[in-house]
Amino acid sequence: MSDQVIKAEDLYDFVKRLMMRCQVSDVGAHYIADNLVTANLRGIDSHGVGRVKRYVEGIRRGYIVPDVSPKIVRENSVLGNVDARDGVGQPAGVFGMDMAIEKAQSEGIGLVTVFNSNHYGFAGYYAMRALEHNLIGISLTNSEPLVVPTFARNAILGTNPISIAAPTSKNRPWVMDLATSVVPRGKLEVYERLGKRIPPGWATDERGTSTDDPARVLENVLYGYAGGILPLGGEGETHGGHKGYGLSLMVDVLSGVLSGSNFGPDIIATKDGKMNHPRVGHFFMALDPAFFTELDVFKRRMDDYIDLLHTCNRAEGCSRIYVHGEKEYEMHDLRTREGIPLDAKTAESLIEYSKQFNEAIHFMS
Amino acid sequence: MSDQVIKAEDLYDFVKRLMMRCQVSDVGAHYIADNLVTANLRGIDSHGVGRVKRYVEGIRRGYIVPDVSPKIVRENSVLGNVDARDGVGQPAGVFGMDMAIEKAQSEGIGLVTVFNSNHYGFAGYYAMRALEHNLIGISLTNSEPLVVPTFARNAILGTNPISIAAPTSKNRPWVMDLATSVVPRGKLEVYERLGKRIPPGWATDERGTSTDDPARVLENVLYGYAGGILPLGGEGETHGGHKGYGLSLMVDVLSGVLSGSNFGPDIIATKDGKMNHPRVGHFFMALDPAFFTELDVFKRRMDDYIDLLHTCNRAEGCSRIYVHGEKEYEMHDLRTREGIPLDAKTAESLIEYSKQFNEAIHFMS
Repeated sequence: MSDQVIKAEDLYDFVKRLMMRCQVSDVGAHYIADNLVTANLRGIDSHGVGRVKRYVEGIRRGYIVPDVSPKIVRENSVLGNVDARDGVGQPAGVFGMDMAIEKAQSEGIGLVTVFNSNHYGFAGYYAMRALEHNLIGISLTNSEPLVVPTFARNAILGTNPISIAAPTSKNRPWVMDLATSVVPRGKLEVYERLGKRIPPGWATDERGTSTDDPARVLENVLYGYAGGILPLGGEGETHGGHKGYGLSLMVDVLSGVLSGSNFGPDIIATKDGKMNHPRVGHFFMALDPAFFTELDVFKRRMDDYIDLLHTCNRAEGCSRIYVHGEKEYEMHDLRTREGIPLDAKTAESLIEYSKQFNEAIHFMS
Repeated sequence: MSDQVIKAEDLYDFVKRLMMRCQVSDVGAHYIADNLVTANLRGIDSHGVGRVKRYVEGIRRGYIVPDVSPKIVRENSVLGNVDARDGVGQPAGVFGMDMAIEKAQSEGIGLVTVFNSNHYGFAGYYAMRALEHNLIGISLTNSEPLVVPTFARNAILGTNPISIAAPTSKNRPWVMDLATSVVPRGKLEVYERLGKRIPPGWATDERGTSTDDPARVLENVLYGYAGGILPLGGEGETHGGHKGYGLSLMVDVLSGVLSGSNFGPDIIATKDGKMNHPRVGHFFMALDPAFFTELDVFKRRMDDYIDLLHTCNRAEGCSRIYVHGEKEYEMHDLRTREGIPLDAKTAESLIEYSKQFNEAIHFMS
């Protein structure tokens, strides 16, 4: 099996049909497919259709419940708390974010937490939903333990991402979406596949010290042995590892502790050898810049800031200064035109499901 | 002149009197003194009374207006935008944070931005004000350009801190307060004073590449030459420097762009050789956990998380795992008992002002 290329709409269509065959509702399947394919289009392949396998297996094992609807448990004009009832993360996430958006449109702000959810894909997907309403969007989620707190030996924290999107006029919107770890797990997998050593300061081994062996880290993490990925800022406090640790914890406090969901090491699908609902928590916020200043003024100021960053002096040997989201928008344009490349492993697993569920998949090549 | 030790209450009293002699109101002087001395008590000496000189000089030069009151320009039941009118940062910050707290007590959330302000001291001071009301507090501010965006040559961004404080029952509250740069400027000053080289990945020189020479960086930054401190994650993208760059920009978008204040390189006190109001922007949020879950449950879950972190396995050679704010609370206890040590340079400048303003200062030694 070799790498494949597939058109975005064909990939979306296949993933949606597959999810519906797993008892996910039409609208739920739409959001899963749209979220995963959008990640691929934007070049965030770590959160693309390579995840389909985990969702199908999660439904089969029972820790993801395919056919439940999110339920509002508390609500006022600006706040909400939503029970995702162990359902699929994407429709629960959209439900929460859209609730925040609706409140922000009427009151200037909306803040909604979601508990008892599952993996919701890439965080930026939700933040970006605010853009078409000229709102600032914020999306946070906790996630399975992969990251070691400063001076600790075990992975306690998730890669717990922070995403914020802000509208602009002339430039593409500013979309920041970052894991609070130095690197995502997917980066270690790439180095392992290429037989490369990882730089010091990315991950620790089972003694809790920095290692250059990606295979060892991935195995340790997979089997729940000690060690893991380091928080943004790296090992110890010299380069601010305690700051990345703090940011990851902040995301967990706002997504997990506050919402009433699981947090820290409890966000796992297997506990004491048995199936366990991970009970992921999300945090969504929408904010109307038009409350604080004129909307046009805000958007122009965002444009000015982006222009300033684009045109400021570059460090020796550097050819371009990026703003967040820019590389992803360019990749989105490219892959919309030329199709989405899938690595052999991902293509293979989709073909396997195509056979199992008797749903056709059409590659370009 | 040698190092000195001074009782917290004597230091507070002196700084307050000094500020009142500079035409700051009684309440304004209280918040400046309380903010700076609290920073010293907590061991955050970079934001302690060493800053008095900048405030006095700022008032003398006219870019800080000592005797104005903040003015609410927009407000609804949950949001506010406040014009600090180029006044002192601390009373404007407290005004904004307390407004957010009041709204959160009635509506579950309050979010207030402040524009046209000045340096407000340490960010955690404001976030912590939420704790006594059993609220989560968040405090962000932009600040003078010291930090170089990824691949850029010049300092465009501030060290733009993020602070969040969350209430607990049994444990000390969780108080995170971090600059979004690898290190604060104060850290480079310490290395320079000791004649030590700085680790690679902390700062860049005028070519935009990592340097180990703290004196060179400090001089470059002081005179507005190229180079500066690196964002959390360090140089380039290998260790996530683009993430620290994004977090710093996020703080500036929420504090500066959104509030209608200055942002990026405009937050300076001298422009084209003339006095310039820096027009710093702040962002404050208070959130009531009791809206989302029972207050006791939230506090117990925070305690559980902190206990878990305290007792998890430690990396080889590490003796203790900290949570954020813990070191600072311990230092607060110690310095409340034993007094606040002031380095010779800081003590000297306070004695100089003591003479100029004819206000007595009493050291312990």
